[in-house]
Amino acid sequence: MPKRRYVSPAVIRRLPRYHRFLGRLIENGVERISSKELSSMMNLTASQIRQDFNCFGEFGQQGYGYETKRLHNEIGEIMGLDRGFTAVLIGAGNLGKAFAKHIDFNAAGFTLEAVFDNSPEQIGMQISGLVIRDVSALEEFCSSRKIDTGILCLPGEAAAAMVTRMMSCGIKSFWNFTHEDISLISPDIIVENVHLTDGLMVLCYQLNDALKG
Amino acid sequence: MPKRRYVSPAVIRRLPRYHRFLGRLIENGVERISSKELSSMMNLTASQIRQDFNCFGEFGQQGYGYETKRLHNEIGEIMGLDRGFTAVLIGAGNLGKAFAKHIDFNAAGFTLEAVFDNSPEQIGMQISGLVIRDVSALEEFCSSRKIDTGILCLPGEAAAAMVTRMMSCGIKSFWNFTHEDISLISPDIIVENVHLTDGLMVLCYQLNDALKG
Repeated sequence: MPKRRYVSPAVIRRLPRYHRFLGRLIENGVERISSKELSSMMNLTASQIRQDFNCFGEFGQQGYGYETKRLHNEIGEIMGLDRGFTAVLIGAGNLGKAFAKHIDFNAAGFTLEAVFDNSPEQIGMQISGLVIRDVSALEEFCSSRKIDTGILCLPGEAAAAMVTRMMSCGIKSFWNFTHEDISLISPDIIVENVHLTDGLMVLCYQLNDALKG
Repeated sequence: MPKRRYVSPAVIRRLPRYHRFLGRLIENGVERISSKELSSMMNLTASQIRQDFNCFGEFGQQGYGYETKRLHNEIGEIMGLDRGFTAVLIGAGNLGKAFAKHIDFNAAGFTLEAVFDNSPEQIGMQISGLVIRDVSALEEFCSSRKIDTGILCLPGEAAAAMVTRMMSCGIKSFWNFTHEDISLISPDIIVENVHLTDGLMVLCYQLNDALKG
């Protein structure tokens, strides 16, 4: 299948959602779905969905809809979920521990290879089958393996120095749970920021808006 | 200031980010900023920013830029951050505990009023100054207070029944960390879904894309 080079960030951000919805359809035994049906499920327009899928090639057949399994696989492939990327998590506080236990890394294309912390109370503890390692051993750990991504669950004030250190270990991409803007540290850095409270603020807006009637 | 009625979801989703960036500018002593400067900081176009702010009224003056404090306050007001909304959190597992401790509810316009769980091991424990309550006391708790939002950190299979129960307590909006689609439960429900792994998948896409050169 021919793939176009430029895909807009908005389309890229919709891919995980398509993947999720298609996965559910497959679980429910749905083999084929029209862009119209998918659009009403996903609260998008049918033409939006057709446009999105057209960015990557020809997935459906006019009048026959999309094969759910094929489309699910293709979207997974486009995202590179089968590439076996690797991640390490820095900061085994409440949030880091919760993420290490709760997040389905494999489903998102990653293996969580290690968890690091600098607190003697945490180092040596087990989490999701991984021993929490001393962050002073980060360089040694990375020297023998290719690590693609750093998951930053450490205090914000320590983030910039840690990112610089991790980049010198060859780690180029970061899933950033701190509120620090690390994107300017290097032109080569790939950053996905998570601002949990943004979602809560959107909820606040909607409640406020509903009050106005 | 006159406010237009319809604001697109895309604009609403950018409001928390504007609020965050403006807050940082104020912290750094910046009193005034042009849409051009703000655009390069935020990786948006200047015309996008002007259009967004125009949805709500007239914030800036041609050639003089925006007053950071005033704009920050106005956006906060538009989102209703000063309305004093209330939330309860259901599910004091790893994730629920981490969120109760880590999230700045006040900054997002909420007070976390209570945490509920059904596990005898959790009930009675303290978290962020709140005692974890028995979820069987939810109705009683809500009968004496107005609770606006439910934060769902419970197992997905229990989500739908819990939402129905919470709605009969007068709770209409939900911050949903489960993977269940609860939006169809009622036409009146307000839902903000959090799919953490979506962000990780976007990172996967970007790593995969970078590999292709």
